[in-house]
Amino acid sequence: MKKGLPKREEGFSSWYTQVVNDAGLADYGPVKGTMVIKPYGFQLWENIKESFDRMIKKTGHVNAYFPLFIPKSFLSREAEHVEGFAKECAIVTHTRLKSDIHKGLIVDPESKLEEELIVRPTSETVIWSMYKKWIQSYRDLPILINQWANVVRWEMRTRLFLRTSEFLWQEGHTAHETKEEAEKETLDILFLYKKLAEQYLAMPVITGVKTEAEKFAGAEKTYCIEAMMGDKKALQAGTSHNLGQNFAKAFNVKFQTKDNNEELVWATSWGVSTRLVGAIILTHGDNKGLRLPPKVAPIQVVIVPIFKNLEQKKIIKTYIDDVVTNLKDQKIRFHEDWTDNTPGFKFNKWEMKGVPLRVEVGLRDVEKNNIVIARRDIDKKETLPKRNVVDKISVILDNIQKNLFSQANQFMQDNTHSITDFETFKMIIKDGGFVRCGWDGKSKTEIKIKEETKATIRCIPLDEKPNGLKCIYTGNIAKHEVIFAKAY
Amino acid sequence: MKKGLPKREEGFSSWYTQVVNDAGLADYGPVKGTMVIKPYGFQLWENIKESFDRMIKKTGHVNAYFPLFIPKSFLSREAEHVEGFAKECAIVTHTRLKSDIHKGLIVDPESKLEEELIVRPTSETVIWSMYKKWIQSYRDLPILINQWANVVRWEMRTRLFLRTSEFLWQEGHTAHETKEEAEKETLDILFLYKKLAEQYLAMPVITGVKTEAEKFAGAEKTYCIEAMMGDKKALQAGTSHNLGQNFAKAFNVKFQTKDNNEELVWATSWGVSTRLVGAIILTHGDNKGLRLPPKVAPIQVVIVPIFKNLEQKKIIKTYIDDVVTNLKDQKIRFHEDWTDNTPGFKFNKWEMKGVPLRVEVGLRDVEKNNIVIARRDIDKKETLPKRNVVDKISVILDNIQKNLFSQANQFMQDNTHSITDFETFKMIIKDGGFVRCGWDGKSKTEIKIKEETKATIRCIPLDEKPNGLKCIYTGNIAKHEVIFAKAY
Repeated sequence: MKKGLPKREEGFSSWYTQVVNDAGLADYGPVKGTMVIKPYGFQLWENIKESFDRMIKKTGHVNAYFPLFIPKSFLSREAEHVEGFAKECAIVTHTRLKSDIHKGLIVDPESKLEEELIVRPTSETVIWSMYKKWIQSYRDLPILINQWANVVRWEMRTRLFLRTSEFLWQEGHTAHETKEEAEKETLDILFLYKKLAEQYLAMPVITGVKTEAEKFAGAEKTYCIEAMMGDKKALQAGTSHNLGQNFAKAFNVKFQTKDNNEELVWATSWGVSTRLVGAIILTHGDNKGLRLPPKVAPIQVVIVPIFKNLEQKKIIKTYIDDVVTNLKDQKIRFHEDWTDNTPGFKFNKWEMKGVPLRVEVGLRDVEKNNIVIARRDIDKKETLPKRNVVDKISVILDNIQKNLFSQANQFMQDNTHSITDFETFKMIIKDGGFVRCGWDGKSKTEIKIKEETKATIRCIPLDEKPNGLKCIYTGNIAKHEVIFAKAY
Repeated sequence: MKKGLPKREEGFSSWYTQVVNDAGLADYGPVKGTMVIKPYGFQLWENIKESFDRMIKKTGHVNAYFPLFIPKSFLSREAEHVEGFAKECAIVTHTRLKSDIHKGLIVDPESKLEEELIVRPTSETVIWSMYKKWIQSYRDLPILINQWANVVRWEMRTRLFLRTSEFLWQEGHTAHETKEEAEKETLDILFLYKKLAEQYLAMPVITGVKTEAEKFAGAEKTYCIEAMMGDKKALQAGTSHNLGQNFAKAFNVKFQTKDNNEELVWATSWGVSTRLVGAIILTHGDNKGLRLPPKVAPIQVVIVPIFKNLEQKKIIKTYIDDVVTNLKDQKIRFHEDWTDNTPGFKFNKWEMKGVPLRVEVGLRDVEKNNIVIARRDIDKKETLPKRNVVDKISVILDNIQKNLFSQANQFMQDNTHSITDFETFKMIIKDGGFVRCGWDGKSKTEIKIKEETKATIRCIPLDEKPNGLKCIYTGNIAKHEVIFAKAY
């Protein structure tokens, strides 16, 4: 916190970078584009992870773990898949280092692998090579497996949490008897993602389908949740793919059906990643730093005692004893800041770190049996009788959670526009915001709009109403109502 | 479960392999030496992980995440460290694949990295390169960071859970102001490992120090927990290293002390891995399969209803309603097996999977208001009044947990021998077991004994009593009392 935080309005990108740094969320690693997730950032991720892990376990999914390395040949089994990942992958070619008298430590050429290995960019291929072994009959289905893992995609332009060479995520990979069951699974997960985003991250999302150009390499259909960030750009926050029989075909995974036929297995895959941490920052952050939704905040309440000497410290400690007990009983994640820093320093620090609720106690409060509370979501301090506050902290946290959602939702509504002419379209895209409009369904049109405006079709929203619409670009009858925006 | 399980006595190694397979714990991945951890095995690991994660968080540690890739040059900064890992690492050299008209998918030679990357075999180097940035003053210390991660060590001879090219683990990396504080941390963690092993995995361990020959590459001192497996061989189950100032030196990490001097930072690192799953199998397994300690068992109680038709099924379902409610209330992890398989099939299946307690209910039990319970740790079935059982299940599980520990502890005691002559030593090592004896402290002696008997010094136990002992091999005055055994 050496330099002041740039204002969001003046440089959203540098504001973001500095919040990540000053709030102690992450740092770049020594290898270009890699990320170190610092403890505070990692606790945030752990809370997101646990929330979603509970949801998928409740719906019958189980966790497992598949290897990091994929034989090169596996990648090429599914044509679109390899196309999508070949240009950005880390390739292992050797397995030994040796000392060279001139050059120091070198790769031992004799340790060259017969077949190169790809560090997984995603695990469809390695997982379907195993499903081939595990699936014989309808009795082996469905398989509802998820894994929490690291994946690597060699990115040239990186930004912490949003785009890094290595990131953490969950990837679900399910196998089903029928097309319908796979489609249902794809959608069930989509709605779990929506729930995670809206109820836990307080981040409103639009659910929709990706166009051909934007869908996952190897999928039949990609559903997504899209959110609006504080700079009015879109962020793809999670995707759920109906893979049809593509990977079953690629790995020849057939099963004996109930009526004794043989059929290819139906598949889905789906993922959310540490990108969600970036999404929280970009959705809720303000000019003082982070603002964290209580449900996932590492620290939900920070207590800042205000004292000048040891005696005062002691008095306050005794005074807040019941507050502390109450927080413990309610299993609220709290922190007491007894450092010798000034109150101002402490306020700034915990505001930067986005702690939802601050409790301040000074000697005057002790005398009057009061307590001061400062909510991070609204700019307002209140002095209240202590007994009025203590029992209500979880209610206040609930309110903060809801209010952060409302604020973000209002922002998204205010900046989403149903448009019918391309001039207005261009103006809004330039300014920032989501445009809802007609599209003729042609990739060519999509590409031209992207070239002219940098906007992409974020999704065909599930609630589209294409009837009567015309394509924003060609004027032809619209095949879909879509959402255009510039995106992260 | 197509072929019968080989008897442990007749082929411990093939018994192990088949238990891992038949209990559904793990499978080999497509790349040589890699492991797929199947859902049941992964739940076991998740329970171990959560148990230990709680312990370290309670003692002030926090989780973080550091990158998978380490620049080659980092590894060579610490001389012993590189020596230990150079010969068994996965090396990333390129970042792109391309299509070749003749050869198909090939590594694009133009994507060659300037500096090769090592897939982390352990993270000391990458972490200390970050600590260099994070530590300036004593105020920044201690750092008590842990990470849960995958690591890669290129192994030639692999065995599921015990030795695989990639495995999952936790690695703690702490930074301290003083030598004493680092030593205390190293020991504190050692005792948490002991607690994890004994109280959660029901696996008795010996705590001790490794000899120079066996210590971690880069450590000053390696503490370990060593356990005795069912074939009387030793298994290193966890290690805690006092790294002294070695890595601070290698990465030039100095801090300003309280009295305004500059000093190198003191360090520890420590880890346990998915190897612990293998340790559980090898410690508790019997000729029927796995036996799992209730505290980490994915399923603690399996209910096997015995019925011949739908009507009977219904009667039993109603009858066990209160049992189920009770299990839920007590948060016991249970499973009801309502499949149409025969009771015999079900018994075998859940015995193979090591479920600690089986509850059987047939029509006769319903009539007499009884329930049958079968503990997996002892070969005994009991028919008891239902109301006597329901409330006591958690007590029974506790007893099973304790009894598994007692059995293993008795086994270890029975097969640990204090020996003074080398002939007996050789006989015992050949037969299997731990030998406690004097050692002159010389690496040469250690090597000779290994050459002649394949036994290694597992550790110098913390409770050693070297006074008056003579070296088992040279007859010279013993420097230490040590434990020799053949090891995994």
